[in-house]
Amino acid sequence: MAKLYFRYGAMNCGKTTALMQVAYNYEERDQKVLVIKSAVDIKGDKNLVSRLGIERKVDVLLALDEKLEDYKINYSEISCILVDEAQFLTPIQITELWVISKLYDVPVISYGLRTDFQTNSFPGSKRLMELADEMEELVTICRCGKSAKFNGRKVNDEFVSEGDQVAIDETDNVTYESLCGKCYLDKVLVLEK
Amino acid sequence: MAKLYFRYGAMNCGKTTALMQVAYNYEERDQKVLVIKSAVDIKGDKNLVSRLGIERKVDVLLALDEKLEDYKINYSEISCILVDEAQFLTPIQITELWVISKLYDVPVISYGLRTDFQTNSFPGSKRLMELADEMEELVTICRCGKSAKFNGRKVNDEFVSEGDQVAIDETDNVTYESLCGKCYLDKVLVLEK
Amino acid sequence: MAKLYFRYGAMNCGKTTALMQVAYNYEERDQKVLVIKSAVDIKGDKNLVSRLGIERKVDVLLALDEKLEDYKINYSEISCILVDEAQFLTPIQITELWVISKLYDVPVISYGLRTDFQTNSFPGSKRLMELADEMEELVTICRCGKSAKFNGRKVNDEFVSEGDQVAIDETDNVTYESLCGKCYLDKVLVLEK
Amino acid sequence: MAKLYFRYGAMNCGKTTALMQVAYNYEERDQKVLVIKSAVDIKGDKNLVSRLGIERKVDVLLALDEKLEDYKINYSEISCILVDEAQFLTPIQITELWVISKLYDVPVISYGLRTDFQTNSFPGSKRLMELADEMEELVTICRCGKSAKFNGRKVNDEFVSEGDQVAIDETDNVTYESLCGKCYLDKVLVLEK
Repeated sequence: MAKLYFRYGAMNCGKTTALMQVAYNYEERDQKVLVIKSAVDIKGDKNLVSRLGIERKVDVLLALDEKLEDYKINYSEISCILVDEAQFLTPIQITELWVISKLYDVPVISYGLRTDFQTNSFPGSKRLMELADEMEELVTICRCGKSAKFNGRKVNDEFVSEGDQVAIDETDNVTYESLCGKCYLDKVLVLEK
Repeated sequence: MAKLYFRYGAMNCGKTTALMQVAYNYEERDQKVLVIKSAVDIKGDKNLVSRLGIERKVDVLLALDEKLEDYKINYSEISCILVDEAQFLTPIQITELWVISKLYDVPVISYGLRTDFQTNSFPGSKRLMELADEMEELVTICRCGKSAKFNGRKVNDEFVSEGDQVAIDETDNVTYESLCGKCYLDKVLVLEK
Repeated sequence: MAKLYFRYGAMNCGKTTALMQVAYNYEERDQKVLVIKSAVDIKGDKNLVSRLGIERKVDVLLALDEKLEDYKINYSEISCILVDEAQFLTPIQITELWVISKLYDVPVISYGLRTDFQTNSFPGSKRLMELADEMEELVTICRCGKSAKFNGRKVNDEFVSEGDQVAIDETDNVTYESLCGKCYLDKVLVLEK
Repeated sequence: MAKLYFRYGAMNCGKTTALMQVAYNYEERDQKVLVIKSAVDIKGDKNLVSRLGIERKVDVLLALDEKLEDYKINYSEISCILVDEAQFLTPIQITELWVISKLYDVPVISYGLRTDFQTNSFPGSKRLMELADEMEELVTICRCGKSAKFNGRKVNDEFVSEGDQVAIDETDNVTYESLCGKCYLDKVLVLEK
């Protein structure tokens, strides 16, 4: 029985590179993958772009009001479904992916953020954490050298704790910094003992 | 920096036994643990009871409207905080536990269900999946021999898909059966390709 | 395809309790388990004894010169094979267990020490680390509060770094203390920067 | 206390790409990494080369008769040590890396094969599995679609079960194919129930 995987991590931990490596491994064996990306993410449009400098075409750019069943995919031809920016998918789309993994026996490996800049899950990541057969963390590094697990948002280079859930990196003076729990409490929530 | 752990699993996977083993390991070294249980769970009252036949006293039976700060605990004396039935804690209580782990450098190991009988997270497990430094699955076995990850609810021995989120095992003819994803789709949602 | 698991941990981390919980979970569903223990371990003889106070009979007490095939086991009746003190099995016995998991599709969950008091693997644990489909660590606590991963041997209460690989706990004034890597370097190897 | 990591996987699972992503993440934050590679591996010489098409310079090309202490490295300047082809390091070199992680508090992340074409560990991977604080598997895909964990060696395109432990890919008509346990038993050992 194929599994639904959620490989989560803070921003800039290398999720897209990891996805492209898995796609490469399948294709090297002449096995077909289906790459899905949420249309909410506007960076790279119909391409995945890794910070290491590699690119790849997306097969399905999934809008919020679409369902996978609209795409009439022949799952018997597909060895693996890979999902980028999975946190932006709707709970219904994630449920669809889970059902597909079980009914068509196709593994689904989804990459995404666990939480937003306020430590709350996104609709897609909440549903993934409810359903995923395997959850695996991809770690990156905090400024203090520890593992970064949270996403601090900065506006004009100052950490903020209020705002919309989605604000794409490098637009409207918004940037993000991946932080460990301790640094998040210190810098963003300004919480001390 | 101490970690917040979420060790989750379907019903009857051995969460309470695992918690008691950890408590035993600390106490064998003369290190003090604090055992917290949600007051929502009425089984065993102020005791943890494992299906293997071992028992242990709870230190804090935490009600939904309480906060941990009400208990005036001296965290410097405590080597580890252990939480049973953590899915029933409120998001605020879980956030408190996370902050305690970081500000007082005390590990918090919480055991609980990931999802209810409809595959939705509980308030406490949702918050734990947002904040936990480590998530570890404790597996049990489905009727088909695969790993069980979901909790099917039965009323009068028939699977049901509607009802309140919380209905304690063995009251009002309610029982639960731990199921793998495939069997959950087959038996509870009656979903076929 | 069933898996071979190696769940390893330092002494007194709760391996035998964990094994008995898994056995209980299978038997609660009327599924049969086969419990194997190395005859090298003389504690408890044909019984498993957990420090939490629970006991259980062993099905096969396997001597160093025996093979599993000598036992004429009908694997089609068995839902899971559980192995205690797996580090003491021979490489050939571990290879047999791996082949059984694949040819008869029966999961094998083995519990054992990773390394001896000199940080070298045992014959059985070396082979398990080569073949296991899944390796999972069971942690216990060092005197310093960190995770203990190594087994310090004491003779007459002093740490020693020389001696036979096998010396059973509490015989000939031998005791063990589970230590983290840093404390092992400090106390046993007496190594400083 | 910094950890020694062993991230192992079969051939062509993406170990070198993963290493370069970690290096990139550190350097993006202006933190310095030290990249070590065994001189036993002759591919790429003093460069790491990923199959995805990215390259990177190696800082230390470590020969079998060298020790890290010969290099007079100032560990206080280094945020992370990254090791490629770690299976080829000697047990003494691995022990050195473990001691460095603990005495200088520098994380060491080593990537390598777990076992050779006969399912036996390499000297370096055996020692890593004895000492690593964390072992994490990087998976790739078998011809049957399952996770590949073993390395089948082919000479002139036929699987072989005898030969030297080290024979570099694509020299002397040697190639490798990553296989799951079941396919390894079927194709290489030609073992049936």
